[in-house]
Amino acid sequence: MKTALSALGRRTAPPPISWLMKTALSRPKLISLAAGFTDNATLPVELSRELLNGILRSPKTGQPALQYGITAGETNLRTLTARHLQKLDGGHDRAHSPERVLITGGSQQLLYMTLEALCDDGDIVLVEDPTYFVFLSILQSRGIKAHGVKLERDGVDLAHLESVLERLKKSGELRRVKALYLVTYFQNPTGATTTLAKKRAVLKLLKQYERAAGHPIYLVEDAAYRELRFDHGNDVPTALTLPGAKERVIYAGTYSKPYAPGARLGFGILPEPVYTAVLRIKGNHDFGSANLLQQLLARALETGRYDRHVAKVQKNYARKAAVMKRAIAEHFPPSVEVWEAGGGLYFWARLPKGMSAGVKSKVFQAALKSDVLYVPGELCYADDPWRRQPVDGMRLSFGSASEANIREGIKRLGAVLRKLV
Amino acid sequence: MKTALSALGRRTAPPPISWLMKTALSRPKLISLAAGFTDNATLPVELSRELLNGILRSPKTGQPALQYGITAGETNLRTLTARHLQKLDGGHDRAHSPERVLITGGSQQLLYMTLEALCDDGDIVLVEDPTYFVFLSILQSRGIKAHGVKLERDGVDLAHLESVLERLKKSGELRRVKALYLVTYFQNPTGATTTLAKKRAVLKLLKQYERAAGHPIYLVEDAAYRELRFDHGNDVPTALTLPGAKERVIYAGTYSKPYAPGARLGFGILPEPVYTAVLRIKGNHDFGSANLLQQLLARALETGRYDRHVAKVQKNYARKAAVMKRAIAEHFPPSVEVWEAGGGLYFWARLPKGMSAGVKSKVFQAALKSDVLYVPGELCYADDPWRRQPVDGMRLSFGSASEANIREGIKRLGAVLRKLV
Repeated sequence: MKTALSALGRRTAPPPISWLMKTALSRPKLISLAAGFTDNATLPVELSRELLNGILRSPKTGQPALQYGITAGETNLRTLTARHLQKLDGGHDRAHSPERVLITGGSQQLLYMTLEALCDDGDIVLVEDPTYFVFLSILQSRGIKAHGVKLERDGVDLAHLESVLERLKKSGELRRVKALYLVTYFQNPTGATTTLAKKRAVLKLLKQYERAAGHPIYLVEDAAYRELRFDHGNDVPTALTLPGAKERVIYAGTYSKPYAPGARLGFGILPEPVYTAVLRIKGNHDFGSANLLQQLLARALETGRYDRHVAKVQKNYARKAAVMKRAIAEHFPPSVEVWEAGGGLYFWARLPKGMSAGVKSKVFQAALKSDVLYVPGELCYADDPWRRQPVDGMRLSFGSASEANIREGIKRLGAVLRKLV
Repeated sequence: MKTALSALGRRTAPPPISWLMKTALSRPKLISLAAGFTDNATLPVELSRELLNGILRSPKTGQPALQYGITAGETNLRTLTARHLQKLDGGHDRAHSPERVLITGGSQQLLYMTLEALCDDGDIVLVEDPTYFVFLSILQSRGIKAHGVKLERDGVDLAHLESVLERLKKSGELRRVKALYLVTYFQNPTGATTTLAKKRAVLKLLKQYERAAGHPIYLVEDAAYRELRFDHGNDVPTALTLPGAKERVIYAGTYSKPYAPGARLGFGILPEPVYTAVLRIKGNHDFGSANLLQQLLARALETGRYDRHVAKVQKNYARKAAVMKRAIAEHFPPSVEVWEAGGGLYFWARLPKGMSAGVKSKVFQAALKSDVLYVPGELCYADDPWRRQPVDGMRLSFGSASEANIREGIKRLGAVLRKLV
């Protein structure tokens, strides 16, 4: 008897890092620089207690928090979210309207539903090379093809993006291209941040190919790490602030990383007709995210406690990133190229040409033997037949490890690299 | 320029009751017997405050609650959920293992992901006639065909189920049939409860057609209203207790209705290979539901506070159902057939043959004019070409309206019916 599973059900692969996580759990002495978790020490335990107490102190505020809400999300939280983004974008309000905000169960859910709304089996999404590996898992599961666009330290390589679009145009596949997906702030896995100039150029370029595509090509801006920046004042505006953004930019944001993954909420700002499609899909998924969590975030935002909390979080990660930077300078051989992050949770290291940091490489195996774990960069590249999957990258996270473990982990890894590089 | 939306994105229809809800909001004097909301008065405001205070009192318990967890759900909550179901099923443990439990963002998300895992575009799911209309929305969105099976007061009509399967076998479509979806307790919209004998017969019948289908045909048991029963002691065991259930029953449960929709959590118990497929899909949706809510429910369950709360909820709905029953007896003409519920949130009324209670009917319009709203039963029937969509049903909810409003609403509706029937 055959399986009853759908094509999607049969196709969906296990997450590429599930075995990494199992490995970490099975070796108690292992120092993990692999996990993308946030730092336990900065989670807002006492703050959340106070805010939830305020909400649940009376039936008047407590009952709505425990009742069903509306699918798009609480009006108050949508308004506060739009205002918060406007502030981050320097007062810009071109595309920041509460009516375009959709609250979701993390930005991951927003990305998933956006792909449902846009892509049929066989459609194409362009991604950074490398990119966020769970996004690649969604593409794989949904039968969506991906092509990688080279990533530089300030965003995608525009000439390469153009050549990819040109090639797709010539092969007649441009009509299958629905979006370009960029992680624009302190990217996972490289830590790279896309400049506003590049965002502008990317939007313009996508627009040029729309006629040949026969439909809009959306820029999906995933800003998950945006608020984890080390230099508080120096934010890059989102693509939402650019001309034409209101029609073509899909913005994915999250409260998980800056506030708490355990109170998982994200949000999207979307243009029509994508907004309406995603809203209806959300209705079928869960008709709206948990109100209790929405009220919690709304209180945090409206009391200013959210901003104060995020400032603390930023300082904490900045300190841990500095620890990792110093340890790398001390222990890594100079031939290993390191991209230093100005925010987020990750450093990106690249081995000299011809060397592999992949799962089966000597480097990865020796690191494991020395009880230190990283995410092999090869897991972050799309399955793109147009190029060989690079294997030289390593994602090093300073998010959840303690400062002592960051120092010791980098020291161990440095010893492995000095021996093998 | 064409839209970039996918077939799913273009196809997904607005929820059929969104305009009903808008109507309710725009008429302040309107009494809504339409909403399926739970009763504000019984929401566990103070209880949730106490439990969350306990969790967030110390970093030791607070940090894990605010951190990422695992995709399947917290081990503790899965264990408590399995144990809770075992208890409801009279100690039966045939298929109640924590390893088979998946925690989700409401049972709705479980249903959605189960359909993703099982059904391709054009596949078939059998449903009750009538059934839960949001389930129909998912089918519509995902391009899944539905055939309705007649519903009696004790579950589906077995002879009709067999004739539907036989007809599909003859037409060669049986290989597209992936599941039968039953809302087994105090069904939405009819209040009907499926007996264990019927569940057994249904499982047996589905099994008989598997050879011709070439693959398993699953029984999806949606038990969303199970714990809202009026006679506490007299529970019907789930299909999970039957022989063969471990391989063929997909059980969808929820904590939303008995505890709080605003702390939205549901769960599934699934057989392989569906469990693994749905788990991977869940990883792509959101890699696990919010830990804070999971810890809240775990505390409620392990302290026994959940059970005590549910007992109160049951009493409250039993009282409100009795109010509706008396009002119907007083005000409805005897020619209107009413199915009285033994739990849940709904009564089901059917007009005499030939009369319509549908959206465009005189009855519905006159009711609106009298400022009383119900859910027209026609919205609860699958788009099934094999029969005309019945229009004689009305779903009457006693869930969120006050006792005074239930009395007044039924009185108004009774006046309309006496005039028109």
